[in-house]
Amino acid sequence: MRSAIVIVGYGNVGHHLFMALQVSTKMEIFVLSNRKNHQHLLNSESVHWIDKSNLPDTPPRFCFLTVRDDQIKKTAESLPENWKKESTIVHCSGVLPFDYLKQVCPHFALFYPLNSFSKEIPFEWRDVPVFIDSSREVDKSQLITLAEKFGAKAVENNDHTREQLHVAAVMVNNFSNHWFRIAAEFLKEKDIPFDHLLPLIRTTVSKLDYEPAAKAQTGPATRGDVNTLNKHLKMISNEEIRELYKKMSASINPSIKDKLT
Amino acid sequence: MRSAIVIVGYGNVGHHLFMALQVSTKMEIFVLSNRKNHQHLLNSESVHWIDKSNLPDTPPRFCFLTVRDDQIKKTAESLPENWKKESTIVHCSGVLPFDYLKQVCPHFALFYPLNSFSKEIPFEWRDVPVFIDSSREVDKSQLITLAEKFGAKAVENNDHTREQLHVAAVMVNNFSNHWFRIAAEFLKEKDIPFDHLLPLIRTTVSKLDYEPAAKAQTGPATRGDVNTLNKHLKMISNEEIRELYKKMSASINPSIKDKLT
Repeated sequence: MRSAIVIVGYGNVGHHLFMALQVSTKMEIFVLSNRKNHQHLLNSESVHWIDKSNLPDTPPRFCFLTVRDDQIKKTAESLPENWKKESTIVHCSGVLPFDYLKQVCPHFALFYPLNSFSKEIPFEWRDVPVFIDSSREVDKSQLITLAEKFGAKAVENNDHTREQLHVAAVMVNNFSNHWFRIAAEFLKEKDIPFDHLLPLIRTTVSKLDYEPAAKAQTGPATRGDVNTLNKHLKMISNEEIRELYKKMSASINPSIKDKLT
Repeated sequence: MRSAIVIVGYGNVGHHLFMALQVSTKMEIFVLSNRKNHQHLLNSESVHWIDKSNLPDTPPRFCFLTVRDDQIKKTAESLPENWKKESTIVHCSGVLPFDYLKQVCPHFALFYPLNSFSKEIPFEWRDVPVFIDSSREVDKSQLITLAEKFGAKAVENNDHTREQLHVAAVMVNNFSNHWFRIAAEFLKEKDIPFDHLLPLIRTTVSKLDYEPAAKAQTGPATRGDVNTLNKHLKMISNEEIRELYKKMSASINPSIKDKLT
């Protein structure tokens, strides 16, 4: 068997890692996962599905663990003994230290793409930072080459930096997206299309290419326009959302804090 | 004098409205504002600056008021009597009713572009919804033609819809942008470049073309990963930001509400 890569787990990250590796490496790629969960993807992709009963004889060159953070250690421990000894076991977590698996195997590495993956949505790897680190230089070079082959931006890992970025990533991605959801649900109740807001959302993001978010901020809170804020608060029937609206506005402009009703 | 447009006020909206009209209409355009505040723009644009002392003799065809919401009525009232009688006075507010100026002048209109404007940043008008309404059909047709000439999407105004969209716009724009700011400041303290997050932010927004924000949501709160959330909370030293982080996470996934420390 030629040198192979095994991806363990086939969630959002596993799927897009597979798609990227498939076109950028000549190594054979196996996916170790319960294929029953992924039937809908079977026709569109040439995945070599494997499970515990039909593992390749030869330990793979790399074994990427794309399972949940709290499953990583257990999953690594359950791999065949010769894999643990000879393969490089790679975790893809934004928060765990790069040497998280050092008690489990001699050759361990980190490959963390800082982005947000959804299985059903095409993914653009270009310029995506991938934090890479490993117990051996030879592994690091090869992982950097892999990342760069699919257009990502390989970044030398520093555990501290990656951890802080993970906090900031939750803020800019999850919390922003949650506001998109709240707005969409607010409008849906009134039968108003969310699409009217898409150009605005794109503008907000494109401004980041020109100036810091703090400087680009606009809107009633920034202007101290308490009338509009209080009018909006009256229009929001959901108590929890109203509280969030107040707290965000007061955080944008602390001087209005005691004027919101 | 040929048929003219006057823009009153030269803030973010006034500036970009001027830029758009300048290339899309043959009407003469005047800006009624204190030019001293805008010296830095004088060299790059052929603005006809006017003030109370040198107003055009003929009432303009349209007089766009791009001042703050709470200045609109006062500004309209202060216009020359023959303008108030003959011109169509247009307000550009997202929240005031379209007939807000009906006590001031017989010909009034609304021209509200739903987006976020910053004077220093180029603006892309294509597909931006502009809510239009007026006291006369002839004004409405002409305002629709103007908006479409610079690529915007003219939308027949409905006061109720526009008001609700304004609330939602604050959520998707101001609140998202505020999280960009919080993240940037969090990283700046640690000397970590915010640029690492730009591909992620673009991904978050591009997902909206494929599925609702609710479905695209990822991250520790969605997964119920309380360990990561509590680790993040420990890393955030600012008490107010920590509270906001908790409230956003609990709003994303109410089941974790009592598990955050």
